[in-house]
Amino acid sequence: MERVRQQILSLLSSGSYSIWYVIDYQDASIPEFFKLIEEMEAEGIIKIENGMISLTEKGKKEAEGMQFHDFTCKECMGTGYELWEEIKKDYESIAASRPPPEAKYDQGYISIDGVIRRLSFIFERGDIYGSIFIAGDDDLFSIAAGLTGLPSRIVVVEIDERIVNFINKVAREYGLEIEAIMHDLQNDIGELKKKFDVFVTDPVETLPGITLFLSRCVEALKGIGSVGYFGLTTLEASRHKWYEIQRILHDMGFVITDIRRNFNVYPDDGKNFFTFQQRLPVFKKIKAKNDYNWYKSSLYRIEAIKEPKPIITGWHKLGKALYHDNESWVTPE
Amino acid sequence: MERVRQQILSLLSSGSYSIWYVIDYQDASIPEFFKLIEEMEAEGIIKIENGMISLTEKGKKEAEGMQFHDFTCKECMGTGYELWEEIKKDYESIAASRPPPEAKYDQGYISIDGVIRRLSFIFERGDIYGSIFIAGDDDLFSIAAGLTGLPSRIVVVEIDERIVNFINKVAREYGLEIEAIMHDLQNDIGELKKKFDVFVTDPVETLPGITLFLSRCVEALKGIGSVGYFGLTTLEASRHKWYEIQRILHDMGFVITDIRRNFNVYPDDGKNFFTFQQRLPVFKKIKAKNDYNWYKSSLYRIEAIKEPKPIITGWHKLGKALYHDNESWVTPE
Repeated sequence: MERVRQQILSLLSSGSYSIWYVIDYQDASIPEFFKLIEEMEAEGIIKIENGMISLTEKGKKEAEGMQFHDFTCKECMGTGYELWEEIKKDYESIAASRPPPEAKYDQGYISIDGVIRRLSFIFERGDIYGSIFIAGDDDLFSIAAGLTGLPSRIVVVEIDERIVNFINKVAREYGLEIEAIMHDLQNDIGELKKKFDVFVTDPVETLPGITLFLSRCVEALKGIGSVGYFGLTTLEASRHKWYEIQRILHDMGFVITDIRRNFNVYPDDGKNFFTFQQRLPVFKKIKAKNDYNWYKSSLYRIEAIKEPKPIITGWHKLGKALYHDNESWVTPE
Repeated sequence: MERVRQQILSLLSSGSYSIWYVIDYQDASIPEFFKLIEEMEAEGIIKIENGMISLTEKGKKEAEGMQFHDFTCKECMGTGYELWEEIKKDYESIAASRPPPEAKYDQGYISIDGVIRRLSFIFERGDIYGSIFIAGDDDLFSIAAGLTGLPSRIVVVEIDERIVNFINKVAREYGLEIEAIMHDLQNDIGELKKKFDVFVTDPVETLPGITLFLSRCVEALKGIGSVGYFGLTTLEASRHKWYEIQRILHDMGFVITDIRRNFNVYPDDGKNFFTFQQRLPVFKKIKAKNDYNWYKSSLYRIEAIKEPKPIITGWHKLGKALYHDNESWVTPE
């Protein structure tokens, strides 16, 4: 954590910051972050008051000679991609009436711009023209993709009836080629196996949960050359968990072609999952009002080098282990 | 290659493009790319004249309904990062008198802006404050890093005496804490083992070569939590090679935290390695004048989750296999 300590000192050398801003700025998982700032507080390096973190006099001495610069590109929010404006317009107006997130399924949606940038990236890769399998779609990515008119087929499997109905209703109204199906990923995907060129998902981040999500997605793919996109945070998935996930991806026959940091932002727009904060461990710990869109994830792209081989096949019951582990601090209890 | 075919059709649906532009736009390696466009030409889908590729009438029918958009952020060239302007100024004036690339070492340098953006990214990660080991530095990254005054130590190992002398001379003149040492990576790094927080390298891209480069770099790292940055193209390293490299990284104990596509651009500024084009297979194949900065690489960042374990230790002779394999089409013969 020496390096993350440097990140925090570097940032705070330029003033005091909201704890939410600091969480986003640094690279550790939430439990590691708390452990670190509690140590720094105990050493008398930083102080935390009303949700603001700043350096003490002792801390200022330690941070002497450090600098802070924000080098994130302000034009694209550090993503490297522009918005697909024609698609954004319709998508935004449709998403305005989306069903609110449901705590029991750990829902929460990516920003409008985030979904549209993901689409730009998928377009650039040539992946938009294929058949697309989406596992869980509270982000309504299927609708953004459908609005382009380019994919040969879009199928959404989703556990929440409200979202299934919403997507199918929009598809009918706008004449989009999308089929949304009620499905619990603890069941296998039946006749959808080996039918798709591309999958897209934002999985739960427990190791058993993500293994299940990725296995079902991988099983949906046609074969060598098929690709997948998924989001993964560093906040609820430590680097140790990332390491295990990367082994799983390799064993399933996939090369990682991209990992784009902070590509996906979950905005606190008054309706997103932050409304569950009474049930979110991170808010119990911090207690200060959220004042910053700090919950982000990296976008992975993977490509099958071998015949895709799911780790899990057939019925696989997970229950509570699907959503909860000792890193799931932003998942409703 | 179906997906890359879609990428090419999608692009050409908007007009004709220089073959160099098309090589950069698509995702396959150079040998795969040539195989594909030769197939498309034989099918009568595309035509290639004076280095320009366009759709035939038959191709236009196949591409009906396709679209092309360039969504790359123009502000940051798709990298997501701004320039560190204060550093750029001095770095640029120093780099103006760099030794020209040497064919026998497969040299070629990243653009000024590319080096500076790499520095921005390393700064953001908190990695700039540590000790930095650089294996091969015709990019003069050591000088950019040294100009910030932030790293605790910078050591360059480099086979080319001209570059060693250049870096040491600049370091003396500007009072930078950089030490450049003559070293052939076929030898191990002796007392530099286990001394550094960070490594930076742009390795050769043959599998034996990159295994050697990464092994030496990994051996320089202190231990768990240490990190590495390196560039890797898709042009001279196919996805199969990437897959092997990712297994090697995992076996050495590293998680991949970032893969940023097209982060590094090798500019054709009249002095870079493009001057060797008589000896570069890709130019023998294409014959058309280069009119676009098409040679780019992805930036990897990796972090040690376990005690770093190099694949190769001790003296390791490679000879020609260091530089050449059947994908090395942009490496001097």
